[in-house]
Amino acid sequence: MTMARRWYYNRFTSGALEDDTLVLREEPLRDPGPGEMELRSIHLSLDATNRVWLSDWDIYMEPVRVGDPMRGFLMAEVVRSDNPAFPVGALVTGMHTWSDRFITDGTGFVPFPRFPGIPLDEAFGVLMIAGPTALYGLMDVGRPKPGETVVVSAAAGAVGAVVGQIAKIHGCRAVGIAGSADKCRWLVEDLGFDAAVDYRDGDLVEGLRAACPDGIDVLFENVGGACLDAGLTLMNDFGRVVVCGLISTYNRTAEVVPGPTMFRNVIMRRLRVEGFVILDHLDRYPEFQGKLAGWMREGRIKHRLHVVDGLENAASALTLLYSGGNTGKLMVRIGAEPA
Amino acid sequence: MTMARRWYYNRFTSGALEDDTLVLREEPLRDPGPGEMELRSIHLSLDATNRVWLSDWDIYMEPVRVGDPMRGFLMAEVVRSDNPAFPVGALVTGMHTWSDRFITDGTGFVPFPRFPGIPLDEAFGVLMIAGPTALYGLMDVGRPKPGETVVVSAAAGAVGAVVGQIAKIHGCRAVGIAGSADKCRWLVEDLGFDAAVDYRDGDLVEGLRAACPDGIDVLFENVGGACLDAGLTLMNDFGRVVVCGLISTYNRTAEVVPGPTMFRNVIMRRLRVEGFVILDHLDRYPEFQGKLAGWMREGRIKHRLHVVDGLENAASALTLLYSGGNTGKLMVRIGAEPA
Repeated sequence: MTMARRWYYNRFTSGALEDDTLVLREEPLRDPGPGEMELRSIHLSLDATNRVWLSDWDIYMEPVRVGDPMRGFLMAEVVRSDNPAFPVGALVTGMHTWSDRFITDGTGFVPFPRFPGIPLDEAFGVLMIAGPTALYGLMDVGRPKPGETVVVSAAAGAVGAVVGQIAKIHGCRAVGIAGSADKCRWLVEDLGFDAAVDYRDGDLVEGLRAACPDGIDVLFENVGGACLDAGLTLMNDFGRVVVCGLISTYNRTAEVVPGPTMFRNVIMRRLRVEGFVILDHLDRYPEFQGKLAGWMREGRIKHRLHVVDGLENAASALTLLYSGGNTGKLMVRIGAEPA
Repeated sequence: MTMARRWYYNRFTSGALEDDTLVLREEPLRDPGPGEMELRSIHLSLDATNRVWLSDWDIYMEPVRVGDPMRGFLMAEVVRSDNPAFPVGALVTGMHTWSDRFITDGTGFVPFPRFPGIPLDEAFGVLMIAGPTALYGLMDVGRPKPGETVVVSAAAGAVGAVVGQIAKIHGCRAVGIAGSADKCRWLVEDLGFDAAVDYRDGDLVEGLRAACPDGIDVLFENVGGACLDAGLTLMNDFGRVVVCGLISTYNRTAEVVPGPTMFRNVIMRRLRVEGFVILDHLDRYPEFQGKLAGWMREGRIKHRLHVVDGLENAASALTLLYSGGNTGKLMVRIGAEPA
């Protein structure tokens, strides 16, 4: 009997994830039924929003409930199939459980598109979630004009790093907020950000003010809390705040987390503050991926994959996102890429 | 020598306005110089935002500084003139000092437009500030679709009352939040709101939930604080929050006022939260006033003027806005309307 390993949501946890919040179980894998297939997982994307799925908040999709398998974005290979849309050997991507092998009728999966010249892991890491999130959020929600100043928080994260580089491509001043001198150096020296501010070093408002001599026109917010308040403080008239993530609050779901104290600037500066979830815009993926892949091939979007090996390490890897332990795209290699 | 009375900002006050925050002084009035005119004030508009002008916040315009005359929107009559654009007897409207007579070169003033069938005080009270604010904010920022639910806070105030009635004209469900059973009754019985919730009576979230069985699509926010949080809690996906005012915070300018605790719903519900100031849209006043005057004549926009008599009572009248002591448009009659 084939066995599979799968992570389950074991115990509700309101603060930082604990060792027994998620547990890995081994279980028998049934055979695919009519129209079904067996998938072998290759890569698992870890995204800040994963933590939100485990909260008791009213979120943007079905939450993961205690007792359910943990959920994530995967790249997988079809190893057995009774589904003509997904022949054996095909690569697919979609949302499913954190597991190394599983049976599905293909719901939520699409063939993994090939991007000539871009290795599979990079295509998965940048073009599936982080890149489209950065591109849609910055260009469609933030709508920066050339010459404007774009500030992005969690700038050394998967989304933030791409946001700053797209801002540069569009002729903007790109300023990142990150959590270490190393990350800041990477943003400026390797990725071409105009400036980066270490939020752990000194007064964030003053640091950001110095990095943004003309104020902030677009704030791409991944963090919330002090980052959001510093940004709001420095927004220009008619600025836009793209609310992509509030990661500083995701381990505080049991608390009443105070909102931004500079909320009044929504009026004083006449701001547009807009949230989005990339899953609402899957219909535009071909456009997004085409643009992003082009920039990657031209070397205009650089990136760094932070790959953790082994499904068994997925839960501990996820916590890196909330401690700032990753630089670049965090993902788990569950199985080998096809030869 | 002609004397004039004028209010001055006497002493910085971070909390509720005190008796000596604004002081009334009598002073000689000089003659108009070349190109100038003497205006006699008739009506003074009192608006929630007046308090913000006295704060030490970085606001959307030049603040009023300690020692300066207090500022407001006025209707006045030209009584002496060396300015051919403003002949003697003309009525004008614009922003100037809280005074009964003053000299100006006309900067910031426009001829007061006549609206046949609408008395001068109503035209001033509804069509100069509150009506355009309500119309622009609801339709251009909130963009409600017929059948959607519009919630407005401070609904018995000058702006809120008009917002709800425009929502009804556009086929929406209109729900008001106000601070007394009498105000709520007025909104429903006289103005045609579908429901009204007294924020001083019971749990606001539950009251609002009962009044909005299909959730909230557009929240027109005049208050902030608990009102804003209750609204954010109940927003539908892709809802819009029109941030017109945050009156609950305007007497707390020296404090760090916590922002909305339900800010995360900007992502979870994919909201657009947008602030505006009507002064940015003066170019559209003819359009706004034409529509509003038409609805007033048809009886589709009803209103109530809360008129306080005498310039000497202006400062105490202003405090009514922050205690909820007014119903409808608060204004001060400084002088008689022309015969």
